[in-house]
Amino acid sequence: MSFYNFEETNSEEEDIHYMKLALEEAKKALAADEIPIGAIVVSKNRIIGRGYNLTERFNDVTAHAEMQAFTSATQTIGGKYLKDCTLYVTIEPCVMCAGASYWTQISRIVYGAREEKRGFISKGSNLLHPKTILKGGVMADECGLLMKSFFEKRR
Amino acid sequence: MSFYNFEETNSEEEDIHYMKLALEEAKKALAADEIPIGAIVVSKNRIIGRGYNLTERFNDVTAHAEMQAFTSATQTIGGKYLKDCTLYVTIEPCVMCAGASYWTQISRIVYGAREEKRGFISKGSNLLHPKTILKGGVMADECGLLMKSFFEKRR
Repeated sequence: MSFYNFEETNSEEEDIHYMKLALEEAKKALAADEIPIGAIVVSKNRIIGRGYNLTERFNDVTAHAEMQAFTSATQTIGGKYLKDCTLYVTIEPCVMCAGASYWTQISRIVYGAREEKRGFISKGSNLLHPKTILKGGVMADECGLLMKSFFEKRR
Repeated sequence: MSFYNFEETNSEEEDIHYMKLALEEAKKALAADEIPIGAIVVSKNRIIGRGYNLTERFNDVTAHAEMQAFTSATQTIGGKYLKDCTLYVTIEPCVMCAGASYWTQISRIVYGAREEKRGFISKGSNLLHPKTILKGGVMADECGLLMKSFFEKRR
């Protein structure tokens, strides 16, 4: 975990504010009977991208919340890079989404709950862009609980 | 590199045949002034997905050849998984595309030329699905040359 840059740049209050909005996206996934993960992309206090997991509806395993938030953010700003942006995502991103974030050169990733098994962090190497700051654990309980209740309902 | 399963299942001749078709896709990218990488997905000797790099046209850093080939393959078969399929891609996939292949549970990935800097292999951990067999170096010279000529032209 020492690969990543954990430098603090934002207030916890601000991060909680935006994570609540990412949680709103996750709840849209839940309402659509999808794995409840949500994401938003913020640039200078403006939400420029949103997304929630739609792998079932699109029948596409790549339709993760983060991928859609990245695509919608780049469409909003009309550029390929997200250099002054923060991704807020309710669950630690997977390898694919971490790899996508590399290409966007996003400044910051803030996630809610850890995903020990399929999250990128435990893959043991630096998959993020060197300029990307990583922060975890913002509203982790709420973010994780949404996942837990979804999978319990499915049993 | 010992993380990956390099078990041989196909004939070199067959792999060359399909890599030539992936190269045709790469040439479409080149003609569109995009980084020339192409991919196809093959299931039981049938091409079920194609893609070429379109990051510039879509203004989207996630529009890699492999991502589009995966999405088009799952649309063709109407299922989310590519369990009996092979991805042929002219250049070693990046972390994002390796991560996407994990979710598809694809049986096999065959790439042409290595991509030392941004390819997934040098990231040092097992980013592929444990069931995915990896093969590299099929028509590596042709695949690499296409990239080289593209970047030389741009200087």
